[in-house]
Amino acid sequence: MMSNKQVGYLGPEGTFSQKATLILENEDTEIIPYPNILNIFEDLSSNVIDEAVVPIENSTEGSVGITLDALSHFDLKILKELELPIQHDLLVQKGVTIDDLNVICSHPQAIAQCRHYINSINKPIHTMESTANAARYVTEISTAAVIGNSILSKKYNLEILDESIQDYDNNVTRFVIVSNNDQEEITGHDKTSIIISLYGDKPGGLYEILYEFAKNNINLTRIESRPSKQGMGRYLFFIDMEGHRNDLIIQDTLETIQKKVAMYKLLGSYEMTVEGE
Amino acid sequence: MMSNKQVGYLGPEGTFSQKATLILENEDTEIIPYPNILNIFEDLSSNVIDEAVVPIENSTEGSVGITLDALSHFDLKILKELELPIQHDLLVQKGVTIDDLNVICSHPQAIAQCRHYINSINKPIHTMESTANAARYVTEISTAAVIGNSILSKKYNLEILDESIQDYDNNVTRFVIVSNNDQEEITGHDKTSIIISLYGDKPGGLYEILYEFAKNNINLTRIESRPSKQGMGRYLFFIDMEGHRNDLIIQDTLETIQKKVAMYKLLGSYEMTVEGE
Repeated sequence: MMSNKQVGYLGPEGTFSQKATLILENEDTEIIPYPNILNIFEDLSSNVIDEAVVPIENSTEGSVGITLDALSHFDLKILKELELPIQHDLLVQKGVTIDDLNVICSHPQAIAQCRHYINSINKPIHTMESTANAARYVTEISTAAVIGNSILSKKYNLEILDESIQDYDNNVTRFVIVSNNDQEEITGHDKTSIIISLYGDKPGGLYEILYEFAKNNINLTRIESRPSKQGMGRYLFFIDMEGHRNDLIIQDTLETIQKKVAMYKLLGSYEMTVEGE
Repeated sequence: MMSNKQVGYLGPEGTFSQKATLILENEDTEIIPYPNILNIFEDLSSNVIDEAVVPIENSTEGSVGITLDALSHFDLKILKELELPIQHDLLVQKGVTIDDLNVICSHPQAIAQCRHYINSINKPIHTMESTANAARYVTEISTAAVIGNSILSKKYNLEILDESIQDYDNNVTRFVIVSNNDQEEITGHDKTSIIISLYGDKPGGLYEILYEFAKNNINLTRIESRPSKQGMGRYLFFIDMEGHRNDLIIQDTLETIQKKVAMYKLLGSYEMTVEGE
Protein backbone atom coordinates (compact mmCIF):
# COMPACT_ATOMS: atom_id res chain seq x y z
CA MET A 1 0.00 0.00 0.00
CA MET A 2 1.29 3.42 -0.91
CA SER A 3 1.36 5.93 1.92
CA ASN A 4 -0.19 9.35 1.41
CA LYS A 5 1.88 12.23 0.12
CA GLN A 6 3.22 14.39 2.95
CA VAL A 7 3.33 18.16 2.52
CA GLY A 8 4.83 20.67 4.95
CA TYR A 9 3.46 24.20 5.49
CA LEU A 10 4.03 27.10 7.88
CA GLY A 11 1.77 26.29 10.79
CA PRO A 12 0.06 26.16 13.10
CA GLU A 13 -3.43 25.42 11.81
CA GLY A 14 -5.54 28.44 10.93
CA THR A 15 -2.85 30.38 9.02
CA PHE A 16 -3.15 31.57 5.43
CA SER A 17 -0.42 29.04 4.60
CA GLN A 18 -2.70 26.23 5.70
CA LYS A 19 -5.52 27.67 3.59
CA ALA A 20 -3.20 27.83 0.55
CA THR A 21 -2.07 24.25 1.17
CA LEU A 22 -5.65 22.97 1.33
CA ILE A 23 -6.41 24.66 -2.01
CA LEU A 24 -3.22 23.47 -3.74
CA GLU A 25 -3.10 19.87 -2.53
CA ASN A 26 -5.48 16.91 -2.90
CA GLU A 27 -7.74 15.78 -0.09
CA ASP A 28 -5.81 12.59 0.63
CA THR A 29 -2.55 14.48 1.15
CA GLU A 30 -1.26 14.58 4.71
CA ILE A 31 -0.43 18.21 5.51
CA ILE A 32 2.05 18.90 8.29
CA PRO A 33 2.45 22.24 10.13
CA TYR A 34 6.02 23.48 10.75
CA PRO A 35 7.19 26.16 13.19
CA ASN A 36 9.26 28.01 10.58
CA ILE A 37 10.04 28.08 6.87
CA LEU A 38 13.68 27.01 7.16
CA ASN A 39 12.67 23.77 8.92
CA ILE A 40 10.24 23.00 6.10
CA PHE A 41 13.00 23.36 3.49
CA GLU A 42 15.44 21.24 5.52
CA ASP A 43 12.94 18.40 5.91
CA LEU A 44 12.01 18.64 2.26
CA SER A 45 15.59 18.52 1.05
CA SER A 46 16.31 15.46 3.22
CA ASN A 47 13.12 13.76 1.96
CA VAL A 48 11.30 13.71 5.30
CA ILE A 49 8.37 15.26 3.42
CA ASP A 50 7.46 15.05 -0.28
CA GLU A 51 6.50 18.65 -0.95
CA ALA A 52 6.22 22.02 0.75
CA VAL A 53 3.82 24.92 0.30
CA VAL A 54 5.52 28.23 1.11
CA PRO A 55 4.68 31.93 0.68
CA ILE A 56 7.05 33.59 -1.80
CA GLU A 57 5.67 37.11 -2.34
CA ASN A 58 2.97 39.47 -1.08
CA SER A 59 1.54 42.31 -3.16
CA THR A 60 1.90 44.79 -0.27
CA GLU A 61 4.98 43.62 1.58
CA GLY A 62 7.07 42.16 -1.24
CA SER A 63 9.21 39.03 -1.26
CA VAL A 64 9.46 36.53 1.54
CA GLY A 65 13.23 36.66 1.98
CA ILE A 66 13.66 33.33 3.71
CA THR A 67 11.83 31.52 0.91
CA LEU A 68 13.99 33.12 -1.79
CA ASP A 69 17.15 32.36 0.21
CA ALA A 70 16.11 28.73 0.66
CA LEU A 71 15.34 28.37 -3.05
CA SER A 72 18.83 29.63 -3.83
CA HIS A 73 20.47 27.42 -1.18
CA PHE A 74 18.72 24.08 -1.70
CA ASP A 75 18.35 22.17 -4.96
CA LEU A 76 14.57 22.17 -5.30
CA LYS A 77 11.95 22.87 -7.96
CA ILE A 78 8.74 24.90 -8.07
CA LEU A 79 5.78 22.76 -9.23
CA LYS A 80 2.84 25.14 -8.98
CA GLU A 81 1.76 28.56 -7.74
CA LEU A 82 -1.32 30.09 -6.15
CA GLU A 83 -2.30 33.72 -5.62
CA LEU A 84 -4.41 33.92 -2.48
CA PRO A 85 -6.30 37.12 -1.57
CA ILE A 86 -5.40 38.04 2.00
CA GLN A 87 -7.92 39.80 4.22
CA HIS A 88 -6.92 40.69 7.76
CA ASP A 89 -9.36 41.26 10.63
CA LEU A 90 -8.83 42.50 14.18
CA LEU A 91 -9.93 39.77 16.61
CA VAL A 92 -10.52 40.08 20.35
CA GLN A 93 -12.15 38.23 23.24
CA LYS A 94 -15.93 38.58 23.23
CA GLY A 95 -17.17 41.96 24.52
CA VAL A 96 -13.77 43.67 24.33
CA THR A 97 -13.77 47.15 22.73
CA ILE A 98 -10.97 49.08 21.06
CA ASP A 99 -10.50 51.23 24.19
CA ASP A 100 -9.79 48.11 26.28
CA LEU A 101 -6.79 47.16 24.15
CA ASN A 102 -3.20 47.84 25.13
CA VAL A 103 -1.42 45.64 22.56
CA ILE A 104 -1.88 44.33 19.01
CA CYS A 105 -0.28 40.93 18.29
CA SER A 106 0.51 39.20 15.01
CA HIS A 107 3.10 37.82 12.61
CA PRO A 108 5.43 40.53 11.22
CA GLN A 109 4.06 40.10 7.65
CA ALA A 110 0.46 40.63 8.83
CA ILE A 111 1.56 43.68 10.84
CA ALA A 112 3.40 45.06 7.82
CA GLN A 113 0.26 44.69 5.71
CA CYS A 114 -1.83 46.69 8.24
CA ARG A 115 0.57 49.50 9.20
CA HIS A 116 -1.82 52.37 8.47
CA TYR A 117 -4.60 50.78 10.49
CA ILE A 118 -2.32 50.05 13.46
CA ASN A 119 -1.05 53.59 13.32
CA SER A 120 -4.57 55.00 13.24
CA ILE A 121 -5.61 53.17 16.43
CA ASN A 122 -2.26 54.02 18.03
CA LYS A 123 -1.58 50.82 20.04
CA PRO A 124 1.76 49.11 20.67
CA ILE A 125 2.65 46.06 18.57
CA HIS A 126 3.79 42.65 19.76
CA THR A 127 5.19 40.54 16.92
CA MET A 128 4.78 36.74 17.16
CA GLU A 129 5.84 33.66 15.21
CA SER A 130 2.42 33.14 13.63
CA THR A 131 -1.04 34.67 13.59
CA ALA A 132 -2.30 31.48 15.27
CA ASN A 133 0.15 31.89 18.18
CA ALA A 134 -1.04 35.47 18.53
CA ALA A 135 -4.68 34.28 18.58
CA ARG A 136 -3.87 31.78 21.33
CA TYR A 137 -2.26 34.59 23.31
CA VAL A 138 -5.39 36.75 22.91
CA THR A 139 -7.58 33.96 24.34
CA GLU A 140 -5.61 34.46 27.57
CA ILE A 141 -5.16 38.24 27.60
CA SER A 142 -8.33 40.34 27.30
CA THR A 143 -6.42 43.58 26.62
CA ALA A 144 -4.73 42.10 23.53
CA ALA A 145 -6.04 41.85 19.95
CA VAL A 146 -4.74 39.72 17.09
CA ILE A 147 -4.51 40.64 13.41
CA GLY A 148 -5.33 37.55 11.38
CA ASN A 149 -7.86 35.81 9.20
CA SER A 150 -11.47 35.11 10.06
CA ILE A 151 -10.83 31.34 10.44
CA LEU A 152 -9.02 32.16 13.69
CA SER A 153 -12.20 33.67 15.14
CA LYS A 154 -13.98 30.32 14.98
CA LYS A 155 -11.00 28.25 16.05
CA TYR A 156 -10.16 30.41 19.08
CA ASN A 157 -13.66 31.68 19.85
CA LEU A 158 -12.74 35.32 19.22
CA GLU A 159 -14.89 38.20 18.03
CA ILE A 160 -14.17 40.24 14.89
CA LEU A 161 -13.81 43.82 16.15
CA ASP A 162 -12.80 45.31 12.80
CA GLU A 163 -12.92 43.73 9.35
CA SER A 164 -10.62 43.95 6.34
CA ILE A 165 -8.07 46.22 8.00
CA GLN A 166 -5.20 45.65 5.52
CA ASP A 167 -3.72 48.85 4.05
CA TYR A 168 -4.47 47.90 0.46
CA ASP A 169 -7.62 46.23 -0.86
CA ASN A 170 -5.91 44.08 -3.46
CA ASN A 171 -3.70 42.34 -0.93
CA VAL A 172 -2.58 39.00 -2.39
CA THR A 173 0.05 36.46 -1.32
CA ARG A 174 1.63 34.16 -3.86
CA PHE A 175 2.35 30.63 -2.59
CA VAL A 176 4.36 27.94 -4.39
CA ILE A 177 4.59 24.17 -4.12
CA VAL A 178 8.26 23.17 -3.86
CA SER A 179 9.58 19.66 -4.42
CA ASN A 180 12.75 17.61 -4.94
CA ASN A 181 11.27 16.34 -8.18
CA ASP A 182 11.08 18.35 -11.35
CA GLN A 183 8.18 18.24 -13.81
CA GLU A 184 8.29 18.96 -17.53
CA GLU A 185 4.59 19.09 -18.37
CA ILE A 186 3.64 22.00 -20.64
CA THR A 187 0.17 23.38 -19.88
CA GLY A 188 0.29 26.14 -22.51
CA HIS A 189 -0.06 28.74 -19.77
CA ASP A 190 3.30 28.42 -18.04
CA LYS A 191 5.86 30.43 -16.18
CA THR A 192 9.58 29.73 -15.79
CA SER A 193 11.66 30.87 -12.81
CA ILE A 194 15.45 31.24 -12.65
CA ILE A 195 18.09 32.67 -10.31
CA ILE A 196 21.23 34.31 -11.68
CA SER A 197 24.21 36.21 -10.35
CA LEU A 198 26.28 38.56 -12.48
CA TYR A 199 30.04 38.62 -13.03
CA GLY A 200 31.55 41.29 -10.83
CA ASP A 201 28.21 41.55 -9.05
CA LYS A 202 27.44 44.77 -10.94
CA PRO A 203 23.68 45.45 -10.95
CA GLY A 204 24.19 47.41 -14.19
CA GLY A 205 25.18 44.13 -15.88
CA LEU A 206 21.56 43.10 -15.53
CA TYR A 207 20.97 45.17 -18.66
CA GLU A 208 22.71 42.59 -20.87
CA ILE A 209 20.55 39.81 -19.47
CA LEU A 210 17.30 41.73 -19.84
CA TYR A 211 18.32 42.52 -23.41
CA GLU A 212 18.22 38.79 -24.25
CA PHE A 213 14.65 38.54 -23.01
CA ALA A 214 13.55 41.78 -24.70
CA LYS A 215 15.11 40.76 -28.03
CA ASN A 216 13.07 37.56 -28.03
CA ASN A 217 9.86 39.21 -26.80
CA ILE A 218 9.83 37.15 -23.65
CA ASN A 219 7.62 38.85 -21.09
CA LEU A 220 9.08 39.03 -17.59
CA THR A 221 6.58 38.95 -14.75
CA ARG A 222 9.08 39.62 -11.99
CA ILE A 223 12.65 40.71 -11.30
CA GLU A 224 13.72 40.59 -7.69
CA SER A 225 17.14 41.19 -6.19
CA ARG A 226 18.32 39.49 -3.01
CA PRO A 227 21.64 39.93 -1.21
CA SER A 228 24.10 37.21 -2.22
CA LYS A 229 25.33 37.27 1.43
CA GLN A 230 28.81 37.98 0.10
CA GLY A 231 28.78 41.60 1.28
CA MET A 232 26.96 44.86 0.57
CA GLY A 233 26.27 45.58 -3.09
CA ARG A 234 26.36 41.95 -4.26
CA TYR A 235 23.06 40.48 -5.36
CA LEU A 236 21.27 37.48 -6.81
CA PHE A 237 18.43 38.16 -9.25
CA PHE A 238 15.25 36.10 -9.24
CA ILE A 239 13.59 36.33 -12.66
CA ASP A 240 10.16 34.96 -13.62
CA MET A 241 9.14 34.84 -17.28
CA GLU A 242 6.06 33.80 -19.22
CA GLY A 243 6.54 30.54 -21.11
CA HIS A 244 7.88 27.02 -20.54
CA ARG A 245 11.57 26.16 -20.58
CA ASN A 246 10.87 23.60 -23.29
CA ASP A 247 9.41 26.30 -25.56
CA LEU A 248 12.09 26.75 -28.22
CA ILE A 249 12.50 30.50 -27.74
CA ILE A 250 12.79 30.23 -23.95
CA GLN A 251 15.23 27.32 -24.28
CA ASP A 252 17.48 29.32 -26.64
CA THR A 253 17.34 32.44 -24.49
CA LEU A 254 18.17 30.56 -21.31
CA GLU A 255 21.12 28.87 -23.04
CA THR A 256 22.49 32.26 -24.10
CA ILE A 257 22.01 33.69 -20.64
CA GLN A 258 23.78 30.78 -18.96
CA LYS A 259 26.94 31.74 -20.87
CA LYS A 260 26.76 35.33 -19.63
CA VAL A 261 26.24 34.87 -15.91
CA ALA A 262 28.37 33.81 -12.93
CA MET A 263 25.63 31.61 -11.48
CA TYR A 264 22.51 30.17 -13.08
CA LYS A 265 19.84 28.05 -11.45
CA LEU A 266 16.58 26.84 -12.95
CA LEU A 267 13.76 26.79 -10.40
CA GLY A 268 11.36 25.12 -12.80
CA SER A 269 8.50 25.68 -15.19
CA TYR A 270 4.96 25.47 -13.88
CA GLU A 271 1.40 26.49 -14.62
CA MET A 272 0.73 30.19 -14.04
CA THR A 273 -1.43 31.37 -11.18
CA VAL A 274 -4.15 29.11 -10.01
CA GLU A 275 -6.64 31.70 -8.70
CA GLY A 276 -7.48 31.39 -5.01
CA GLU A 277 -11.07 31.77 -3.88
CA MET B 1 19.27 81.31 20.38
CA MET B 2 19.08 78.51 17.84
CA SER B 3 17.78 75.23 19.17
CA ASN B 4 19.70 72.03 18.45
CA LYS B 5 18.89 69.94 15.42
CA GLN B 6 16.48 67.10 16.27
CA VAL B 7 16.97 63.71 14.65
CA GLY B 8 14.69 60.68 14.98
CA TYR B 9 15.90 57.07 14.99
CA LEU B 10 14.45 53.61 15.64
CA GLY B 11 14.80 53.21 19.38
CA PRO B 12 15.03 52.43 22.13
CA GLU B 13 18.59 53.23 23.17
CA GLY B 14 21.12 50.48 22.59
CA THR B 15 20.02 49.53 19.07
CA PHE B 16 22.25 49.55 15.98
CA SER B 17 20.12 52.44 14.72
CA GLN B 18 21.22 54.51 17.70
CA LYS B 19 24.84 53.59 17.01
CA ALA B 20 24.47 54.65 13.36
CA THR B 21 22.84 57.92 14.42
CA LEU B 22 25.68 58.74 16.83
CA ILE B 23 28.22 58.17 14.02
CA LEU B 24 26.29 60.13 11.39
CA GLU B 25 25.23 63.14 13.45
CA ASN B 26 27.15 65.82 15.35
CA GLU B 27 27.48 65.76 19.11
CA ASP B 28 25.20 68.73 19.71
CA THR B 29 22.34 67.06 17.82
CA GLU B 30 19.40 65.95 19.92
CA ILE B 31 18.62 62.36 18.96
CA ILE B 32 15.14 61.02 19.64
CA PRO B 33 14.17 57.33 19.80
CA TYR B 34 10.92 56.27 18.06
CA PRO B 35 8.92 53.05 18.51
CA ASN B 36 8.70 52.36 14.77
CA ILE B 37 9.97 53.58 11.41
CA LEU B 38 6.61 54.82 10.09
CA ASN B 39 6.26 57.20 13.06
CA ILE B 40 9.71 58.62 12.32
CA PHE B 41 8.75 59.39 8.73
CA GLU B 42 5.43 60.94 9.75
CA ASP B 43 7.08 63.26 12.27
CA LEU B 44 9.79 64.14 9.78
CA SER B 45 7.36 64.98 7.01
CA SER B 46 5.33 67.20 9.35
CA ASN B 47 8.54 68.92 10.54
CA VAL B 48 8.33 67.74 14.16
CA ILE B 49 11.95 66.62 13.69
CA ASP B 50 14.62 67.93 11.31
CA GLU B 51 16.13 64.67 10.09
CA ALA B 52 15.81 60.92 10.51
CA VAL B 53 18.37 58.11 10.47
CA VAL B 54 16.80 54.90 9.15
CA PRO B 55 18.09 51.47 8.05
CA ILE B 56 17.53 50.93 4.33
CA GLU B 57 19.32 47.66 3.47
CA ASN B 58 21.17 44.77 5.12
CA SER B 59 23.74 42.65 3.31
CA THR B 60 22.17 39.42 4.61
CA GLU B 61 18.48 40.20 4.85
CA GLY B 62 18.01 42.67 2.02
CA SER B 63 15.93 45.82 1.88
CA VAL B 64 14.03 47.30 4.78
CA GLY B 65 10.61 47.38 3.12
CA ILE B 66 9.03 49.99 5.33
CA THR B 67 11.86 52.44 4.66
CA LEU B 68 11.58 52.01 0.89
CA ASP B 69 7.79 52.38 1.07
CA ALA B 70 8.09 55.55 3.16
CA LEU B 71 10.64 57.01 0.72
CA SER B 72 8.21 56.40 -2.11
CA HIS B 73 5.22 57.77 -0.14
CA PHE B 74 6.66 60.93 1.44
CA ASP B 75 8.47 63.75 -0.34
CA LEU B 76 11.87 63.51 1.36
CA LYS B 77 15.54 63.47 0.38
CA ILE B 78 18.51 61.30 1.30
CA LEU B 79 21.42 63.42 2.60
CA LYS B 80 24.03 60.83 3.56
CA GLU B 81 24.62 57.10 3.99
CA LEU B 82 26.57 54.86 6.36
CA GLU B 83 27.47 51.19 6.12
CA LEU B 84 27.65 49.78 9.62
CA PRO B 85 29.10 46.31 10.29
CA ILE B 86 26.58 44.36 12.36
CA GLN B 87 27.74 41.76 14.86
CA HIS B 88 25.15 39.86 16.86
CA ASP B 89 25.80 38.18 20.21
CA LEU B 90 23.65 35.90 22.34
CA LEU B 91 23.06 37.58 25.72
CA VAL B 92 21.67 36.01 28.89
CA GLN B 93 21.38 36.65 32.63
CA LYS B 94 24.63 36.00 34.46
CA GLY B 95 25.36 32.29 35.03
CA VAL B 96 22.74 31.05 32.56
CA THR B 97 23.90 28.28 30.17
CA ILE B 98 22.57 27.27 26.77
CA ASP B 99 20.76 24.27 28.30
CA ASP B 100 18.79 26.59 30.61
CA LEU B 101 17.24 28.43 27.69
CA ASN B 102 13.76 27.79 26.37
CA VAL B 103 13.34 30.85 24.15
CA ILE B 104 15.41 33.22 21.99
CA CYS B 105 14.10 36.80 21.70
CA SER B 106 14.95 39.56 19.25
CA HIS B 107 13.85 41.88 16.47
CA PRO B 108 12.83 40.01 13.27
CA GLN B 109 15.80 41.43 11.29
CA ALA B 110 18.31 40.22 13.91
CA ILE B 111 16.63 36.81 13.95
CA ALA B 112 16.75 36.66 10.15
CA GLN B 113 20.49 37.39 10.23
CA CYS B 114 21.16 34.50 12.65
CA ARG B 115 18.89 31.76 11.28
CA HIS B 116 21.57 29.09 11.01
CA TYR B 117 22.76 29.66 14.57
CA ILE B 118 19.21 29.61 15.97
CA ASN B 119 18.53 26.43 14.05
CA SER B 120 21.72 24.80 15.35
CA ILE B 121 20.79 25.40 19.01
CA ASN B 122 17.19 24.39 18.28
CA LYS B 123 15.29 26.81 20.54
CA PRO B 124 11.94 28.50 19.86
CA ILE B 125 11.98 32.14 18.73
CA HIS B 126 10.07 35.05 20.18
CA THR B 127 10.12 38.10 17.90
CA MET B 128 9.97 41.54 19.53
CA GLU B 129 9.76 45.18 18.43
CA SER B 130 13.43 45.89 19.12
CA THR B 131 16.54 44.15 20.39
CA ALA B 132 16.42 46.48 23.40
CA ASN B 133 12.89 45.38 24.30
CA ALA B 134 14.08 41.79 24.03
CA ALA B 135 17.03 42.56 26.34
CA ARG B 136 14.68 44.10 28.90
CA TYR B 137 12.56 40.93 28.75
CA VAL B 138 15.64 38.76 29.34
CA THR B 139 16.49 40.74 32.49
CA GLU B 140 13.20 39.38 33.89
CA ILE B 141 13.19 35.85 32.45
CA SER B 142 16.24 33.69 33.16
CA THR B 143 15.29 31.04 30.60
CA ALA B 144 15.30 33.58 27.76
CA ALA B 145 18.23 34.87 25.69
CA VAL B 146 18.40 37.93 23.45
CA ILE B 147 20.18 38.28 20.11
CA GLY B 148 21.63 41.77 19.94
CA ASN B 149 24.71 43.91 20.05
CA SER B 150 27.27 43.96 22.83
CA ILE B 151 26.18 47.43 24.03
CA LEU B 152 23.04 45.76 25.40
CA SER B 153 25.14 43.59 27.70
CA LYS B 154 26.40 46.65 29.57
CA LYS B 155 23.12 48.52 29.55
CA TYR B 156 21.06 45.57 30.81
CA ASN B 157 23.76 43.80 32.86
CA LEU B 158 23.67 40.67 30.69
CA GLU B 159 26.39 38.14 29.91
CA ILE B 160 27.60 37.32 26.40
CA LEU B 161 27.00 33.56 26.06
CA ASP B 162 28.01 33.35 22.40
CA GLU B 163 29.74 35.94 20.23
CA SER B 164 29.37 36.94 16.59
CA ILE B 165 26.55 34.49 15.85
CA GLN B 166 25.32 36.09 12.59
CA ASP B 167 25.14 33.68 9.63
CA TYR B 168 27.53 35.66 7.47
CA ASP B 169 30.72 37.39 8.58
CA ASN B 170 30.39 40.38 6.34
CA ASN B 171 27.04 41.43 7.75
CA VAL B 172 26.53 45.14 7.11
CA THR B 173 23.51 47.42 7.41
CA ARG B 174 23.26 50.56 5.33
CA PHE B 175 21.66 53.54 7.09
CA VAL B 176 20.62 56.84 5.49
CA ILE B 177 19.92 60.33 6.81
CA VAL B 178 16.57 61.51 5.43
CA SER B 179 15.41 65.13 5.44
CA ASN B 180 12.79 67.53 4.05
CA ASN B 181 15.60 69.64 2.66
CA ASP B 182 17.60 68.75 -0.39
CA GLN B 183 21.32 69.40 -0.83
CA GLU B 184 23.24 69.92 -4.05
CA GLU B 185 26.83 69.72 -2.85
CA ILE B 186 29.10 67.63 -5.09
CA THR B 187 31.79 65.76 -3.14
CA GLY B 188 33.29 64.02 -6.17
CA HIS B 189 32.40 60.66 -4.65
CA ASP B 190 28.63 60.72 -4.91
CA LYS B 191 25.69 58.46 -5.43
CA THR B 192 22.25 59.32 -6.81
CA SER B 193 19.05 57.48 -5.91
CA ILE B 194 15.79 57.44 -7.85
CA ILE B 195 12.47 55.57 -7.83
CA ILE B 196 10.65 54.76 -11.07
CA SER B 197 7.62 52.82 -12.18
CA LEU B 198 7.18 51.50 -15.70
CA TYR B 199 4.26 51.97 -18.09
CA GLY B 200 2.08 48.87 -17.99
CA ASP B 201 4.05 47.74 -14.94
CA LYS B 202 5.97 45.24 -17.07
CA PRO B 203 9.24 44.26 -15.35
CA GLY B 204 10.66 43.51 -18.81
CA GLY B 205 10.40 47.21 -19.61
CA LEU B 206 13.21 47.76 -17.12
CA TYR B 207 15.52 46.76 -19.96
CA GLU B 208 14.94 50.05 -21.78
CA ILE B 209 15.79 52.02 -18.65
CA LEU B 210 18.92 50.03 -17.89
CA TYR B 211 19.99 50.53 -21.50
CA GLU B 212 20.17 54.32 -20.92
CA PHE B 213 22.53 53.81 -18.00
CA ALA B 214 24.64 51.20 -19.81
CA LYS B 215 24.94 53.37 -22.94
CA ASN B 216 26.38 56.21 -20.85
CA ASN B 217 28.62 53.97 -18.73
CA ILE B 218 26.83 54.88 -15.54
CA ASN B 219 27.53 52.27 -12.92
CA LEU B 220 24.49 51.09 -10.98
CA THR B 221 25.15 50.02 -7.41
CA ARG B 222 21.65 48.72 -6.73
CA ILE B 223 18.35 47.81 -8.39
CA GLU B 224 15.56 46.86 -6.04
CA SER B 225 11.93 46.12 -6.83
CA ARG B 226 9.12 46.81 -4.37
CA PRO B 227 5.42 46.11 -4.79
CA SER B 228 3.59 49.24 -5.99
CA LYS B 229 0.67 48.10 -3.76
CA GLN B 230 -1.54 48.19 -6.84
CA GLY B 231 -1.78 44.40 -7.06
CA MET B 232 0.44 41.40 -7.72
CA GLY B 233 3.00 41.84 -10.49
CA ARG B 234 3.17 45.65 -10.30
CA TYR B 235 6.41 47.08 -8.99
CA LEU B 236 8.40 50.19 -8.26
CA PHE B 237 12.14 50.10 -8.93
CA PHE B 238 14.66 51.74 -6.62
CA ILE B 239 17.85 52.47 -8.54
CA ASP B 240 21.14 53.75 -7.09
CA MET B 241 23.89 54.96 -9.41
CA GLU B 242 27.42 56.26 -9.02
CA GLY B 243 27.67 59.99 -9.70
CA HIS B 244 25.92 63.24 -8.82
CA ARG B 245 22.71 64.42 -10.48
CA ASN B 246 24.50 67.65 -11.45
CA ASP B 247 27.17 65.69 -13.36
CA LEU B 248 26.32 66.36 -17.00
CA ILE B 249 26.08 62.73 -18.04
CA ILE B 250 23.82 61.79 -15.10
CA GLN B 251 21.66 64.84 -15.70
CA ASP B 252 21.17 63.94 -19.38
CA THR B 253 20.46 60.30 -18.61
CA LEU B 254 17.91 61.12 -15.93
CA GLU B 255 16.16 63.55 -18.27
CA THR B 256 15.86 60.83 -20.91
CA ILE B 257 14.60 58.32 -18.37
CA GLN B 258 11.94 60.69 -17.03
CA LYS B 259 10.34 60.69 -20.48
CA LYS B 260 10.19 56.90 -20.58
CA VAL B 261 8.64 56.08 -17.20
CA ALA B 262 5.19 56.29 -15.63
CA MET B 263 6.56 57.65 -12.33
CA TYR B 264 9.92 59.24 -11.51
CA LYS B 265 11.14 60.47 -8.16
CA LEU B 266 14.58 61.78 -7.26
CA LEU B 267 15.64 60.74 -3.76
CA GLY B 268 18.77 62.86 -3.89
CA SER B 269 22.51 62.86 -4.49
CA TYR B 270 24.81 62.28 -1.54
CA GLU B 271 28.30 61.24 -0.59
CA MET B 272 28.90 57.50 -0.99
CA THR B 273 29.35 55.28 2.02
CA VAL B 274 30.88 56.78 5.07
CA GLU B 275 32.55 53.69 6.57
CA GLY B 276 31.35 52.72 10.03
CA GLU B 277 33.84 51.67 12.69
